[in-house]
Amino acid sequence: MPLPKRWLTSLMCRCNGKNILIDCGEGTQLAIKEAGLLFKPIDVICITHFHADHVSGLPGLLLAMGNADRTKELTMIGPKGLKKVVNALRVIAPELPFEIKFVEVNDLEKEIQFDDFRIKAFRVNHRVTCYGYTVEVDRSGKFDVERAKALDLPVQYWSHLQKGETVKYQDKTYTPDMVMGEDRKGIKVCYTTDTRPTQSIIDNAMNADLFICEGMYGEEEKITNAKEHKHMLFFEAANLAKEAEVKEAWLTHFSPALIKPEMFMEETKKIFENIVAGKDGMKKEIKFEE
Amino acid sequence: MPLPKRWLTSLMCRCNGKNILIDCGEGTQLAIKEAGLLFKPIDVICITHFHADHVSGLPGLLLAMGNADRTKELTMIGPKGLKKVVNALRVIAPELPFEIKFVEVNDLEKEIQFDDFRIKAFRVNHRVTCYGYTVEVDRSGKFDVERAKALDLPVQYWSHLQKGETVKYQDKTYTPDMVMGEDRKGIKVCYTTDTRPTQSIIDNAMNADLFICEGMYGEEEKITNAKEHKHMLFFEAANLAKEAEVKEAWLTHFSPALIKPEMFMEETKKIFENIVAGKDGMKKEIKFEE
Repeated sequence: MPLPKRWLTSLMCRCNGKNILIDCGEGTQLAIKEAGLLFKPIDVICITHFHADHVSGLPGLLLAMGNADRTKELTMIGPKGLKKVVNALRVIAPELPFEIKFVEVNDLEKEIQFDDFRIKAFRVNHRVTCYGYTVEVDRSGKFDVERAKALDLPVQYWSHLQKGETVKYQDKTYTPDMVMGEDRKGIKVCYTTDTRPTQSIIDNAMNADLFICEGMYGEEEKITNAKEHKHMLFFEAANLAKEAEVKEAWLTHFSPALIKPEMFMEETKKIFENIVAGKDGMKKEIKFEE
Repeated sequence: MPLPKRWLTSLMCRCNGKNILIDCGEGTQLAIKEAGLLFKPIDVICITHFHADHVSGLPGLLLAMGNADRTKELTMIGPKGLKKVVNALRVIAPELPFEIKFVEVNDLEKEIQFDDFRIKAFRVNHRVTCYGYTVEVDRSGKFDVERAKALDLPVQYWSHLQKGETVKYQDKTYTPDMVMGEDRKGIKVCYTTDTRPTQSIIDNAMNADLFICEGMYGEEEKITNAKEHKHMLFFEAANLAKEAEVKEAWLTHFSPALIKPEMFMEETKKIFENIVAGKDGMKKEIKFEE
């Protein structure tokens, strides 16, 4: 449940002016406001599962987006039943100035490619169908000027090859691989909450720049509770971070009874050094390497 | 919309251990928590109308009440369609450990008598069907010991008469009016929001101890806006307070653009002296007179 000074778990990713929101519990529109972010440019909303703390803020947010004059189509991604759930909640937000495109995930995983990024939903293990998400930004290889010069192709066509387009010039066909080096490491953020540890989390968080993972309980003796309610202990999240060899991990989705998550971080860091307890409004800018 | 440090408009009335909540927008469960109030003893929830800012916090609150182990039936009062709207929102709160009794108001007004208080819904004038509410606590007359003594009725029966019960003793029937004075002034609170000024508000707020009324805009030049969106200016609310001869009035439901409602209070108080701009967490204890 939302607590004073602790909003419900949610993540906003921004990339090239596009905004991707993952989860929207009660108060998320306020968290967005407090973080100085805007409603209008939210292009994609991903929902992990249909428990109220991950979805109850939707009607308010959709109305706020409408009030901010969003007219461009919004894409929503979530488990099977997404359209039904969102439309039921829209009983109090029936009129919006934008269309919603629903992408329902039925299988164990699904990738959706956007212009500037790629979102992948992967099944995790909660009491109801629940997905984790990765948001990835690819990075093409370096443009090789020497190879381009050797092609006898006028300079004005080079940028097309750089953008990944094929060029026809004087009866010859030029493809990007003729001038581009191998794809370079891109950026990957992985977000997963309301789940027991799973192999799918390790696979999808692999080498992520940022891994945001639930840590419902700090105390090891809460393992029975965690198993029953299908949540995780801090040390379990840290083990996932270690196995997935991520660069950095943030814990989130603390139990309301867990007042000071920091208390358990010293122990948790023994498993995976670069892990911190998440806080409201936490931000990180991730850039391409080099 | 909810703003940092300004929750959506809502009122909690407490009377003899019973709790009545009027309206429940996004974040109201947090406002309840911040005010040090409890979820479990909420017996009645009244909804003025089905705009999101008055109802979007319901799924979260109902779940919080469930988590607080409420098992006693909850009564909900609201416009026609209440059950449909609440059940649609409950797509994300399907399982609750208590029943909900729905009281839908179809007519211009409706009174519902509870053990300790009486709630009356009265139609106001908004873009959708909307009701104001009064919560009243009656107070019986004084018990007249001299008249009771003159009755030849043993003392142990007096308390029955005092409670309004009829007593049969030695073939004679004794009724409360034989020992009780006239009903004394009780307590009345009137709450109304999202409406233009109406005669129904004046009638129902008449002589209220506390009148809580919307004041969407402070600036008089916003009158066209107010009429179009069916809201009120501060001076209109003050006029209602004056005409209804209430003891005290609070303004609420300010436009998000109205950062400092206090700016307009000097002018507003010229119409009705005992009016103040509402603030988050504002409280008042109202006692019977004398």
